[in-house]
Amino acid sequence: MEQNASTTTTVTATALSPQNIKPLFKSIQAFLFDCDGVIWKGDKLIEGVPKTLEMLRSQDEIFSSSFAAAMYLKINGFPQDKKVYVIGEEGILEELALAGYTGLGGPEDGKKSVQLKPNCLFDHDKSVGAVVVGLDQYINYYKLQYGTLCIRENPGCLFIATNRDAVGHMTDLQEWPGAGCMVAAICGTTQKEPIVVGKPSTFMMDFLLKKFQVDTSKMCMVGDRLDTDILFGQNAGCKTLLVLSGVTTLSDLEDPSNTIHPDYYTSKVADVFEFLEQCP
Amino acid sequence: MEQNASTTTTVTATALSPQNIKPLFKSIQAFLFDCDGVIWKGDKLIEGVPKTLEMLRSQDEIFSSSFAAAMYLKINGFPQDKKVYVIGEEGILEELALAGYTGLGGPEDGKKSVQLKPNCLFDHDKSVGAVVVGLDQYINYYKLQYGTLCIRENPGCLFIATNRDAVGHMTDLQEWPGAGCMVAAICGTTQKEPIVVGKPSTFMMDFLLKKFQVDTSKMCMVGDRLDTDILFGQNAGCKTLLVLSGVTTLSDLEDPSNTIHPDYYTSKVADVFEFLEQCP
Repeated sequence: MEQNASTTTTVTATALSPQNIKPLFKSIQAFLFDCDGVIWKGDKLIEGVPKTLEMLRSQDEIFSSSFAAAMYLKINGFPQDKKVYVIGEEGILEELALAGYTGLGGPEDGKKSVQLKPNCLFDHDKSVGAVVVGLDQYINYYKLQYGTLCIRENPGCLFIATNRDAVGHMTDLQEWPGAGCMVAAICGTTQKEPIVVGKPSTFMMDFLLKKFQVDTSKMCMVGDRLDTDILFGQNAGCKTLLVLSGVTTLSDLEDPSNTIHPDYYTSKVADVFEFLEQCP
Repeated sequence: MEQNASTTTTVTATALSPQNIKPLFKSIQAFLFDCDGVIWKGDKLIEGVPKTLEMLRSQDEIFSSSFAAAMYLKINGFPQDKKVYVIGEEGILEELALAGYTGLGGPEDGKKSVQLKPNCLFDHDKSVGAVVVGLDQYINYYKLQYGTLCIRENPGCLFIATNRDAVGHMTDLQEWPGAGCMVAAICGTTQKEPIVVGKPSTFMMDFLLKKFQVDTSKMCMVGDRLDTDILFGQNAGCKTLLVLSGVTTLSDLEDPSNTIHPDYYTSKVADVFEFLEQCP
């Protein structure tokens, strides 16, 4: 690309405000949320999230990436009589149940251990047709073997990753291994690559486009990370809103070395609710 | 590469026998052993292994890959006052202790769990200067977080993998996640690549060459897998001996589709002992 050295261009994000929220809101048909640092931080919901999501839900569809795995199975005609093994937490099992699928594993298998004895066969359900892997704080050797056997031995078994985030804010004070850790472990044993349905895959966007004819230009990606959430939204052609409730500070955003500029930024998701209340 | 269709070349491995063992044995100064399927299978030692290793040890040096991590630290001047966190089993801790290092983690951390609560900081030892990752049947979220924090937060902390085998015969009836599973999990959270000291790294061979002036042509790689052990030995310039006590059968070896031919093959490691006893 050509660069014009004689021109100084300052690209800045606009602070969301009661003045500019209406035009943004009118141009958007779907909001896509990153969760960690946006909806919750550690084990706490970020202030004002419930009322904001309730308000948005009454006007638009809302999709979170935890819903994407179940939706992937559904739109790809995954048979209802096949089961889904889950390395991950309760939310994935709930979404699978809502979509009409039978999930196995998850937290329930967190306390299981293995018997490494002669003539002792580790058995797995041959009707498992997909293994969904997400963040799992109860990861153990039992689950790793179960998921691996399904993927290696059940013909056509899918390997689906909710996302590949390396780390996440499981507590407010520090980062912890994210879904990318468990996904990599299963890649390591199966020597296969997963179908990723959350970031950085555009599966959800493609789904919204196909199902509701919502173009990505009518979507707003809301996230707390410049180099993943915002870049991902921009690459997909979405409007982008950076919230400062997660890992990015205002000085990170304004730092001259930063090259990723969202369309808008604000302190937290609940500002959307408040600014809409206040707007002229 | 050019292929001559008019010539049929049959490349075959030679069966080890009382007749040819002496010349082989005389040409070899060091044996390198794969363990799984060669020394043990599942939780059992393969028949005749102790007496064979004892005999070899009395004549040559023997190196197993479980020893390689400790040796790597030693020859790279890893300070004795730094600690080593282990994601793996007792053998790694034993080798570290023999080399004079303080190991942490391992089986002891297999029953620890994490507290994902606000204001609860997961603490780690700042004097850990290396994390060694191998096969770990007691893998859990505690160890994954501990290893990740050391690698991410302790300046210069090394990330060492004993090997990257996808699976191994933890029981005689089936394969289980191997060291490659745990190593990949830590790659997933740290976004770093490990220093691999076992297969397929040539670290041990380089070490033997440097320390004892043993050239790889004077080494014999003993393994049960054609596409890893034997190929690895061949690529490094070693003599190779396939044992049929692991995953490879004689028909696999003789199958026309097989392109990897060891110098010798035999049913099990103990044949070396027996043929030497019987040889003229």
